[in-house]
Amino acid sequence: MTERLVVVGGDAAGMSAASQARRRRGADDLEIVVLERGSDTSYSACGIPYWVGDVVEDRDALVVRTPEAFREKHAIDARVHHEVVGIDTAAGQVRVRDLDGGREFDEPYDQLLLATGANPVRPPLPGLDGAGVFGVQTLDDGQAILDHLTAHHVRRAVVVGAGYIGLEMAEAMVVRGYEVDLVERSDRPMKTLDPDLGQRVADAMQGMGIRLHLTTEVKGIEHDGDRPRAVVTSAGELPADVVVLGLGTAPNTDLARDAGIPVGEHTGGIVVDVRQRTRVPGVWAAGDCAEVHHRVARAPAAIALGTIANKTGRVAGINLGGGYATFPGVLGTSVTKVCGVEIGRTGLGEADAEAAGYQPVCASVQSTTKAGYWPDRERMQLKVVAERRSGRLLGAQIVGGEGSCKRIDTFAAALWNQMTVEELLNVDLSYAPPFSPVWDPVLIGARKAWDAVLADGDR
Amino acid sequence: MTERLVVVGGDAAGMSAASQARRRRGADDLEIVVLERGSDTSYSACGIPYWVGDVVEDRDALVVRTPEAFREKHAIDARVHHEVVGIDTAAGQVRVRDLDGGREFDEPYDQLLLATGANPVRPPLPGLDGAGVFGVQTLDDGQAILDHLTAHHVRRAVVVGAGYIGLEMAEAMVVRGYEVDLVERSDRPMKTLDPDLGQRVADAMQGMGIRLHLTTEVKGIEHDGDRPRAVVTSAGELPADVVVLGLGTAPNTDLARDAGIPVGEHTGGIVVDVRQRTRVPGVWAAGDCAEVHHRVARAPAAIALGTIANKTGRVAGINLGGGYATFPGVLGTSVTKVCGVEIGRTGLGEADAEAAGYQPVCASVQSTTKAGYWPDRERMQLKVVAERRSGRLLGAQIVGGEGSCKRIDTFAAALWNQMTVEELLNVDLSYAPPFSPVWDPVLIGARKAWDAVLADGDR
Repeated sequence: MTERLVVVGGDAAGMSAASQARRRRGADDLEIVVLERGSDTSYSACGIPYWVGDVVEDRDALVVRTPEAFREKHAIDARVHHEVVGIDTAAGQVRVRDLDGGREFDEPYDQLLLATGANPVRPPLPGLDGAGVFGVQTLDDGQAILDHLTAHHVRRAVVVGAGYIGLEMAEAMVVRGYEVDLVERSDRPMKTLDPDLGQRVADAMQGMGIRLHLTTEVKGIEHDGDRPRAVVTSAGELPADVVVLGLGTAPNTDLARDAGIPVGEHTGGIVVDVRQRTRVPGVWAAGDCAEVHHRVARAPAAIALGTIANKTGRVAGINLGGGYATFPGVLGTSVTKVCGVEIGRTGLGEADAEAAGYQPVCASVQSTTKAGYWPDRERMQLKVVAERRSGRLLGAQIVGGEGSCKRIDTFAAALWNQMTVEELLNVDLSYAPPFSPVWDPVLIGARKAWDAVLADGDR
Repeated sequence: MTERLVVVGGDAAGMSAASQARRRRGADDLEIVVLERGSDTSYSACGIPYWVGDVVEDRDALVVRTPEAFREKHAIDARVHHEVVGIDTAAGQVRVRDLDGGREFDEPYDQLLLATGANPVRPPLPGLDGAGVFGVQTLDDGQAILDHLTAHHVRRAVVVGAGYIGLEMAEAMVVRGYEVDLVERSDRPMKTLDPDLGQRVADAMQGMGIRLHLTTEVKGIEHDGDRPRAVVTSAGELPADVVVLGLGTAPNTDLARDAGIPVGEHTGGIVVDVRQRTRVPGVWAAGDCAEVHHRVARAPAAIALGTIANKTGRVAGINLGGGYATFPGVLGTSVTKVCGVEIGRTGLGEADAEAAGYQPVCASVQSTTKAGYWPDRERMQLKVVAERRSGRLLGAQIVGGEGSCKRIDTFAAALWNQMTVEELLNVDLSYAPPFSPVWDPVLIGARKAWDAVLADGDR
């Protein structure tokens, strides 16, 4: 008898899972229905700031595969504008609303995958739900921003939150020729970076003309008809024709909670086992809505990133397709480029490490992306965090010019394998003058961290 | 009583060792004498093609530290133009020739470090030792080439050997405006790459106007007075005003052999233990002249590379300074950039893997350096070699546009840790559209290799 898989959410995790399940089981054996409340399947949300900033020409470029392609090439019944509004785990069915027709109906399942993603955080402040105030999560969000920018005479943009989405959107707004104010509650941009590395990012942003308002709280947003007038902050009013929220995201788990599917207390993500199964039989979860195991902190985490969504979706799909795969967890690796500065991190920063219970020892290094005598070398700054006594690598951060940050992957591979910085400093990394100094900055960082561990003594 | 360390060879390995020993032991405790037959200490030999090709302005840029700096800042008695011509291990002294004065004398040692490097291979063919025929090993070699190019009217250059030095020098000659012929005995350039990746390199070189003569043997070089006239090959004569040899290098071990210090039969490198000690008490070796342990082939190797020279020198120096360090071996990682194409490799290629006794399973991948929709993404091609059944990573190769090749370091870190491609495909590598597709090419390569291992069956 044909089994029925229903997937809630048609972006990275949901569609990876559907595709993997289909690879293993034909349409006669497994019927696959994907229900997506938005307008797109399988798109690059990470590309939205570049679409708004005109690096990427149009919306279609960000769509990896359309619902039609899934239907025709993979026999996956992907339906957009279909919102799941309830789950009945006892009956094995979901309640679906067709957002175009308004009709509601039940869709039965044998297996259910929740891939509902994450929602931009919107604090309950006056005016934050008003017109011209945008989160950046779906292509529909991107389109809404562009429509607003077209419909109104926009001169001043205010971005709230200096995480990576906030920074990328601030840059996109500068590129579009607007005056940009960026408001951040903490004392630095990119607070996932340790403070000593944040300064170069702040300098680059100010160099591009972005006004940075740090240690500043947003109190609300005032409107003038169908458009924002000003963002009210602890440091006064900032005039605004458009407001972009970059306050991070939270796992979208309302459906799961309502259905009694356990959600992690600290992370807000759906609790899953190593195969991406929730605690409720027949119900799986993957992507931004699910918890992941952080391999260095050895604790659950919720991290909204396309890479993790693709990987956890793949694992869920292999299992749903009758195979066997487990998800080994994450390191908290991320990278971005803002105002010409590359920013990368993996593992734990100094404060994260302390919060996780480690005693960290740190080393900072200034180096260059290419040989010291190479004409177009760029400066790069590294911070390496190691465990006291053992010298085990706990994390690394990089801020620098072009060609700096993909090096974070080498640290990630080292972290994955629980290497000590002493062992890392000898790894046979590549070298040629157009690519690095003879001691790659990664190795210098490891060496300096090892020196710091030794100097810390008490071994 | 003050001990005495004599170092033979003042480039990367010798000076790294001397510096590390000095860090641990003051001048009252350890006297350090470095004897270098050339004109420079601690220089970037890898930079020579870029100096000849005018990317780097002058010789001084390639010198990391001068003999004077070593003497004044580190109390290291570094003497250039001093050639060691014999070692008397029984008496504990070396015979030294002062190349400027012509005087010979003995220099006693308590500890002796051989860091004599490697010499360019010069087959015993007619004319190969003649004027205008250059190896590329020391800054003196680079200067000799530039002097020849200045002194003569040069229009045509012939490069013999299409390894990385040959390719880099061929490009440098093109940049200088010469007609360039490159002669290679094998059927492809960069034969450290598997054949399927060599084609893009060949295309790029031909695109820059380099004439590539493959499966062509050099028979000799004919001269016309103090300059070459033509390179005689199995496919006819190639007119030449200058000839550059890029036939690889061999460890420079004449001194060691004469002194009865064991040299590896297959590698030609001095045999050392994990602390860089030779088989003769009190005599150490590091850098290009010494064998290294290849971690994947599990066999000794001789690899002339600045990275390895620096690392083995550091290990020797720590030990000579009374510390403890061991050298864990190499992976055969290398990277270069030729005619706009980046080329990287680590571990074993398909043929190497077979030669080492493995049964390899391979996967090839075409991907891009940035998101598929990013305007200035570059194409890159990867080949991943895994072990049959176990799926253990054995090696990887990358050929591609700008931003491709530093990814080889991620493979190197994975290889170092004996990861399987199945485990590698899940590693939390960084992603953002300006840096990679959402599945980094490294992960795609690992995935495809794992698919190939599974398809190979027999598990």
